[in-house]
Amino acid sequence: MFRTHTCGELRISDVNKQITLAGWVQRTRKMGGMTFVDLRDRYGITQLVFNEAVNQELCEQANKLGREFVIQITGTVNERYNKNEHIPTGDIEIIVSEMKVLNVANTPPFTIEDNTDGGDDIRMKYRYLDLRRNNVRSNMELRHKMTIEVRKYLDELGFLEVETPILIGSTPEGARDFVVPSRMNLGQFYALPQSPQLFKQLLMVSGFDRYFQIAKCFRDEDLRADRQPEFTQIDCEMSFVDQEDVIQTFEGMAKHLFKSIRGIEITETFQRIPWADAMKYYGSDKPDLRFDMKFVELMDIMKGHGFPVFDSAEYIGGICAEGAASYTRKQLDALTDFVKRPQIGAKGMVYARVEADGTVKSSVDKFYTQEVLQQMKEAFNAKPGDLILILSGDDAMKTRKQLCELRLEVGSQLGLRDKDTFVCLWVVDFPLFEWDEETGRYMAMHHPFTSPKPEDIHLLDSDPGAVRANAYDMVINGVEVGGGSIRIYDSELQNKMFQLLGFTPERAQEQFGFLMDAFKFGAPPHGGLAYGLDRWVSLFAGLDSIRDCIAFPKNNSGRDVMTDAPAPLDPSQLEELNLIVDIKE
Amino acid sequence: MFRTHTCGELRISDVNKQITLAGWVQRTRKMGGMTFVDLRDRYGITQLVFNEAVNQELCEQANKLGREFVIQITGTVNERYNKNEHIPTGDIEIIVSEMKVLNVANTPPFTIEDNTDGGDDIRMKYRYLDLRRNNVRSNMELRHKMTIEVRKYLDELGFLEVETPILIGSTPEGARDFVVPSRMNLGQFYALPQSPQLFKQLLMVSGFDRYFQIAKCFRDEDLRADRQPEFTQIDCEMSFVDQEDVIQTFEGMAKHLFKSIRGIEITETFQRIPWADAMKYYGSDKPDLRFDMKFVELMDIMKGHGFPVFDSAEYIGGICAEGAASYTRKQLDALTDFVKRPQIGAKGMVYARVEADGTVKSSVDKFYTQEVLQQMKEAFNAKPGDLILILSGDDAMKTRKQLCELRLEVGSQLGLRDKDTFVCLWVVDFPLFEWDEETGRYMAMHHPFTSPKPEDIHLLDSDPGAVRANAYDMVINGVEVGGGSIRIYDSELQNKMFQLLGFTPERAQEQFGFLMDAFKFGAPPHGGLAYGLDRWVSLFAGLDSIRDCIAFPKNNSGRDVMTDAPAPLDPSQLEELNLIVDIKE
Repeated sequence: MFRTHTCGELRISDVNKQITLAGWVQRTRKMGGMTFVDLRDRYGITQLVFNEAVNQELCEQANKLGREFVIQITGTVNERYNKNEHIPTGDIEIIVSEMKVLNVANTPPFTIEDNTDGGDDIRMKYRYLDLRRNNVRSNMELRHKMTIEVRKYLDELGFLEVETPILIGSTPEGARDFVVPSRMNLGQFYALPQSPQLFKQLLMVSGFDRYFQIAKCFRDEDLRADRQPEFTQIDCEMSFVDQEDVIQTFEGMAKHLFKSIRGIEITETFQRIPWADAMKYYGSDKPDLRFDMKFVELMDIMKGHGFPVFDSAEYIGGICAEGAASYTRKQLDALTDFVKRPQIGAKGMVYARVEADGTVKSSVDKFYTQEVLQQMKEAFNAKPGDLILILSGDDAMKTRKQLCELRLEVGSQLGLRDKDTFVCLWVVDFPLFEWDEETGRYMAMHHPFTSPKPEDIHLLDSDPGAVRANAYDMVINGVEVGGGSIRIYDSELQNKMFQLLGFTPERAQEQFGFLMDAFKFGAPPHGGLAYGLDRWVSLFAGLDSIRDCIAFPKNNSGRDVMTDAPAPLDPSQLEELNLIVDIKE
Repeated sequence: MFRTHTCGELRISDVNKQITLAGWVQRTRKMGGMTFVDLRDRYGITQLVFNEAVNQELCEQANKLGREFVIQITGTVNERYNKNEHIPTGDIEIIVSEMKVLNVANTPPFTIEDNTDGGDDIRMKYRYLDLRRNNVRSNMELRHKMTIEVRKYLDELGFLEVETPILIGSTPEGARDFVVPSRMNLGQFYALPQSPQLFKQLLMVSGFDRYFQIAKCFRDEDLRADRQPEFTQIDCEMSFVDQEDVIQTFEGMAKHLFKSIRGIEITETFQRIPWADAMKYYGSDKPDLRFDMKFVELMDIMKGHGFPVFDSAEYIGGICAEGAASYTRKQLDALTDFVKRPQIGAKGMVYARVEADGTVKSSVDKFYTQEVLQQMKEAFNAKPGDLILILSGDDAMKTRKQLCELRLEVGSQLGLRDKDTFVCLWVVDFPLFEWDEETGRYMAMHHPFTSPKPEDIHLLDSDPGAVRANAYDMVINGVEVGGGSIRIYDSELQNKMFQLLGFTPERAQEQFGFLMDAFKFGAPPHGGLAYGLDRWVSLFAGLDSIRDCIAFPKNNSGRDVMTDAPAPLDPSQLEELNLIVDIKE
């Protein structure tokens, strides 16, 4: 036993106790004949005092302590003269009588403080030091607490956590698999799962009724800020349920998490928005509803008045930013530049201010009478002081997505996207298929096992694009935190889906044969959902990237710069696997 | 909502309620004008009744139901005339008024019963049907419950569950790694972790203080009954602890699991046996102490009396099987055959019976006087009716291991190894090194980070084989359920270890450089333990193989016969990875 207490534990009620602590030296201060040392561990900081007059030798040892030395001290708890109200141990200090340096430390390459002087790259290289910082470690503590609460909620509802395999077969459909050569099965490969989808459906066939798993998933994709090659899902599936049952169960889980983790009690039912409305009013299947600023379509009002850009447009729509008429020309130019960035791709932006007297002044006044502009104002229900921003284009969907980016940017500028305000909603009624320009065929919007809405099944042949799915996403603050669907449990309907998706019966059998076979032995109606754990933690922690809630993340090239992985293999390992690396120039 | 209740829920107090159930048809019985259907789900079985006289059409439909059809019924709860005391729903039945076949089912290839008629191979191929069987599913329920209790215990003690990466760097030391080619880093590979060892030690350097993870681990080894290429560990690490702290913490966890899972309250402290004693008295570092039958060494007594086998032996030792003097010649011959099997490798076995009058009759009577045999009897403290079995050999350790197998076999035959009796112990004081004949050098018995006992450090250079480690294994009923060690936290001592293990400084740096580097920034004293979850579940479930507590296990060739993985890759996938498969003849 190296300690009697932790560094976050001692209080005024412990005064005069003889105690032993161990931890890291956060900082040392010499004041007159006294040396003060802040000793840190995961639980807090305790101030140590060394008095030259009392024990000169010990005090001199203390003066030699460097930052991040690991020490063990014994001493007496003393009431502090200058109390520190910012820390729970701030009322006391330790008069040290013995000290042992357990380990010395090189000077860390950045400061171990909430506001460190270290840049991203060096913090990733020395991630084990970065994790010493309170704010980084607290993300991991939050993650731990969330998984505890998730399991508690689901266990109480009778869900069983079942581990599904990590070494599975590869399915070339969907994103790219990571693969694992098998030494014992020559020339053959396992794949790492992109999700436990097929296995959880098999568990439903097995009668497990309610399954969940906090599961590692893998995707070999080019990485972005919110993507990691390995990520964690709260994966769930239920039998004998319809969409409403799944939504109720997981809305309940979201509310449980909000309450237990953030102390926020959400009593109202989450709003549900059909996918078509989400696209129409927010240009996104994951709208941020912390603020309204709905799109208003202006084709009827603004087209045909001689403004060539609008007259040739397939879509004209805008948003009304309340009270933003005071935006300067410079601010408006910046917004125009924003929407014209290649990532967004708009050609330009039209704006209109509603003046104090109710008249509208726009950037295209020469084409429009005040009467038309007033009609436009009415369409937005705009008031004096409001700013109207309009985009147009020859592809309605593309233009809406541009307008979505503009809406989010303006929302941010107006302070309408507070990280501590949460608005949760369900996007429902997704299309079953989406048209893929590249391959010239329909693709499954979710995955090929998603059930069409029964009332739309008759459209499967005549108008597949109009068929809606029993699929749903949960969206919080513009982040898709989870999604799922009711699955097809009828072999015939499943075969029809494969056919519509362009699978030959042979390929369907090759890739999903074992699932199709399983369905022949009595599959129950079932459906489920997967939440992204990393996204939930990021959201609750107010992080911009999921990377910050992962203990040892990879960088954008999929590298762990700390351990320098991946790396070339030992030639004998390759030989054993019957592999030759053949890098093309 | 497909049901108002589950099939395990209705009781006599529900009589006359109108209810809806959904589930699988377990069996149908036609008796006179009545048809009885047992409807099954995860929660139980409920009897459905169809009366021809009341609703002929419905009854005819019921007669057509096949085994494992998925149906939904509505009806009224009725008190049963012939109650079934074997099931919780046995007091009631459902008078069915409506029925819907949700899905038909092919006849399953084996019966969905606790005692199925399906062999191992077919059950693995149709694992999703095997998992419908109560006794198979209940292993998964046990597994779920165990992980819930493990997390509860550790969370309450302040342990944080931290996910460490699955895509890591390869370390050729130790068992064989599974590797994963990186597409984004040409010619480079990740490895799948054999354990989170390095990462958990880094978390201690990060000040996480108490870490755990229920972690998937991977080893590309040739498989045996109790090995799987992927397996699950309860992996733990603590800072500022010595061996006693770790042992106390995890003995507490074992007791918590026994109590919460099996309802067994263990109040006494677990026995601790030094490794040397375990080898000396039981020939095993994981002795089964459900029965005593300690080895007795007989070199002093039995050598030098003219029996050539013993006279040339380096080890003579035996066990005393209480009350087994009645073993027939046939049984004794079978035991001799048992120890002579190539897997065990003994040359022969000597036996001796203690007769009712106290005299000893042995298979080598012609070489020994009754006086010597009496000395031997005394050494075993044997009583009339006991059977003494003796092995000898020219290698003490090998002979002890043979004697260990004999002891276990005899223990089984005498019914001393009851699956519902549990004896837990710690094996401590392991040697730090073991000599490897093949490479002619010392190898780390646990791993290169294991700390020597401080009092033995002075022997590191002079007599490395005598240095004991701060390492410990928990053993239950002859199964090593977990093990761990106190780690080295001093860079100099670690370098010395690498040197003794034959690492050049360059190779040590290449393989463990990041850990060595991390240790330079203030590593705390730390240690930990990993429990094998699969082994724990098997033990509690009374299973012979860990395979039965894994939902989707692999066979001995590492194949998942259900999904037929691994499999050859699509050539385009290989090309993208810059790999050529080159199978040598």
